[in-house]
Amino acid sequence: MSETAERGGGFHQDPEQFRKWGHAMVDWIVDYQKRVGELPVLSQVKPGDLRAMLPASPPEKGEDFAAIAVDLDRVIVPGLTHWQSPNFFGFFPANISGPSVLGELVSAGLGVQGMLWATSPACTELETHVLDWMAEMAGLPDTFKSSGSGGGVIQDSASSAVLCALLAARERATGLQTNETGCTGNLVAYASTQAHSSIEKAVKIAGIGRSNLRSVEVDQQFAMDPSRLAEMIAADREAGRKPFFVCATLGSTSSNAMDPLGAIAALCKREGLWLHVDAAMAGTAGICPEFRVHQEGLHLADSYAFNPHKWMFTNFDCDCFYVADRAALIKSLSVLPEYLRNRATESGAVIDYRDWQVPLGRRFRSLKLWFVIRHYGVEGLRHHIREHVELTQKFAGWVRDSEDFEILAPVPLNLVCFAPRQGNAFSEELLRRINSSGRAYLTHTILGGRHAIRFCVGQTHTRLEHVRAAWELICETARQMKSGS
Amino acid sequence: MSETAERGGGFHQDPEQFRKWGHAMVDWIVDYQKRVGELPVLSQVKPGDLRAMLPASPPEKGEDFAAIAVDLDRVIVPGLTHWQSPNFFGFFPANISGPSVLGELVSAGLGVQGMLWATSPACTELETHVLDWMAEMAGLPDTFKSSGSGGGVIQDSASSAVLCALLAARERATGLQTNETGCTGNLVAYASTQAHSSIEKAVKIAGIGRSNLRSVEVDQQFAMDPSRLAEMIAADREAGRKPFFVCATLGSTSSNAMDPLGAIAALCKREGLWLHVDAAMAGTAGICPEFRVHQEGLHLADSYAFNPHKWMFTNFDCDCFYVADRAALIKSLSVLPEYLRNRATESGAVIDYRDWQVPLGRRFRSLKLWFVIRHYGVEGLRHHIREHVELTQKFAGWVRDSEDFEILAPVPLNLVCFAPRQGNAFSEELLRRINSSGRAYLTHTILGGRHAIRFCVGQTHTRLEHVRAAWELICETARQMKSGS
Repeated sequence: MSETAERGGGFHQDPEQFRKWGHAMVDWIVDYQKRVGELPVLSQVKPGDLRAMLPASPPEKGEDFAAIAVDLDRVIVPGLTHWQSPNFFGFFPANISGPSVLGELVSAGLGVQGMLWATSPACTELETHVLDWMAEMAGLPDTFKSSGSGGGVIQDSASSAVLCALLAARERATGLQTNETGCTGNLVAYASTQAHSSIEKAVKIAGIGRSNLRSVEVDQQFAMDPSRLAEMIAADREAGRKPFFVCATLGSTSSNAMDPLGAIAALCKREGLWLHVDAAMAGTAGICPEFRVHQEGLHLADSYAFNPHKWMFTNFDCDCFYVADRAALIKSLSVLPEYLRNRATESGAVIDYRDWQVPLGRRFRSLKLWFVIRHYGVEGLRHHIREHVELTQKFAGWVRDSEDFEILAPVPLNLVCFAPRQGNAFSEELLRRINSSGRAYLTHTILGGRHAIRFCVGQTHTRLEHVRAAWELICETARQMKSGS
Repeated sequence: MSETAERGGGFHQDPEQFRKWGHAMVDWIVDYQKRVGELPVLSQVKPGDLRAMLPASPPEKGEDFAAIAVDLDRVIVPGLTHWQSPNFFGFFPANISGPSVLGELVSAGLGVQGMLWATSPACTELETHVLDWMAEMAGLPDTFKSSGSGGGVIQDSASSAVLCALLAARERATGLQTNETGCTGNLVAYASTQAHSSIEKAVKIAGIGRSNLRSVEVDQQFAMDPSRLAEMIAADREAGRKPFFVCATLGSTSSNAMDPLGAIAALCKREGLWLHVDAAMAGTAGICPEFRVHQEGLHLADSYAFNPHKWMFTNFDCDCFYVADRAALIKSLSVLPEYLRNRATESGAVIDYRDWQVPLGRRFRSLKLWFVIRHYGVEGLRHHIREHVELTQKFAGWVRDSEDFEILAPVPLNLVCFAPRQGNAFSEELLRRINSSGRAYLTHTILGGRHAIRFCVGQTHTRLEHVRAAWELICETARQMKSGS
């Protein structure tokens, strides 16, 4: 069978066709990045709009790539909420960069599998190495480095990381009995009321049950109250239950609250509980020494996760998950069927990352992280992270100085939670109007019963002009609402 | 701060730098694809070789991208096992194609999140639509289409798919009680002795326990014996346990065995058990009507998974996971914290795929699948799949005709399990020598106590010449061994 460029699809793309369309897609991305700031940030489509543009059935005959490419603008772009717009201030960021996109591209072009060391040694060794680099850069304790008994692995998300931590904790607490005979309903886990929803999800998945996850009360800063944690643990022990796992949060999703890690870690150590620390977004700030203050006590933690795919210019998915005792993790997740046996694995001299995660297969994700770290260098990353924090603090200052708004939570890094003084209904409508304008995108939370608008600065190309424009839009929209228009 | 191309790193890559290096990386991939057939398929490095080439600490200053690019050849390529080599016949394939790599590239360049419909409607709607296409193409029952009560979602792997299926089954069997109060050790799951290791892993993760997973005996063709399944279910019921889940396999990893789906599905229906069907590699063959014979009974299944990232020219990760009752899946995996609430979700008119999977975040993976289906068309995909099956059958014929080897399992599609007549030690050494040569890569399994060499045809560019060269290498190596050299 011949490669038939002329037939325009149907057969394998030959290398020169791939080159042509590869260049064209790179150019398309350049063009997209240049205009993304002008597009409405929140997609304006309605449910079903995109599907209505597509044929009901798949094409029988292959199509020319030109026909496919043209549909990116026609079908896809209008249906996007532009996470890479400098006017994106919603949720947490998922910022990307040129070097990271190139890393994804090369990884895709190589198409190797990293489930075992043997299935592509480079994929495993680069990951171990870059995660050691990352630990050093982010000021993490040596306990998490592969040179000792710990080590790091890339997970798809902080959700998967906390699940793996919970499973390792479950097995440690039960002497591997749960893997063998199943859960018995006696284990209890703890996280603050502000902890991420993925902990509840993990507790359900792992057969622990939602009713065995305690929501620990928080203080005025929305940070976990360690004395309440201690009381809850004592009460559970008294009732014959088995406390086994605590998730502390550095930078809660709702308001970027920082749980007091030192006190929590000391308590967990005393009580023999697995301590997982979720620093999904805020962990990136640890690259700057001045932001490491919240990490005190981390050397006592059993596991830690943060996401370069949020704030470190690295494409999703790239969660860095560290454990202090890799044997505990591996014992919990390892299975070794005959068809995966190989000499390198049996030598014990290598890491097989399939035993560090839920899935078996894995792509070469460390490549993009390597590209990002080398392109920026530690200094470059510090520079850009500090810039985001400065912009955020500037915005917080404007809110504080205004008569119409107030700040509802501390602003340790790059998230401001604020509200208009007119109350919840006004706040909700204000947010709806801002997002409908397409000129900026912000999301919300509830803090102490109040509807709070979240303003998170973290998109790669967000600069002062975008933050200022967003603030002016917020003020102007509020003024219009007050004047009844 | 200015964008400083001159400083070569440290600051954000500007669009023109990204264009330049994007083109260069596309060219590098073209070059790699052209020479990959000449490289030793199995990486020849030893543990630690790659790490020894890297600096112990991350760079303080950003580097020029040219320095990074040059390390692809110096550091990375020698450490790869080349899954995209036409001489790769190991495990199952993870074949890729130009359109798929382009889909990954565009997805990376857009950098959107698809956790909710609202976070990028196109990401969700294209996925639902293309998975409906895929169901039609692969001859799946209408029960799995989104037009009814079912629907499809992209998971990272068949491992995650079976975990999600198991969780939905667990919740259905316990009236959502397990999510609430945890597992109680009474549930029992079933799969054949030949089922994938991910089922054991899922049973452990979900708190069911390995001892509550029954390994159902197989027949001479390594397919599940439904009468044994029925007996085991009856025995468990008799003992007061609660059977709830069966995983049937279409195309086992070990030998591509096909469980008799019709009989198993009828039994599951009668017994009220959740039936999940794992067709990880073989499912792609369903695109050709003549290979759908094994799918009979699938309309009675509760869930189904197959991986276009194995044999459908689509980059990992892309597992298509279907459920007949999407509400059962969503109820099992849904959590809705305040910061994710939005009008579209509350309207009930949209799909939020975060409730169909373990992680929260998700990338725009349907883009590559859309590109692949449109580029090839259904006809093109059929053509290439049939070509792989034909090559495999040709190889199987050579084995059958040879005096030195015998085939150890049926060859329904694209995998031949065979062994030299000299026994296990000879077979192991033969495989080791073939792989050490770098000229082809094959893996092994154990079938009925015998060491079997697995020869799986599925790499995108594998043609008759590669299959013939591999067969000649096998025969020549065996001859050398017999002659004592």
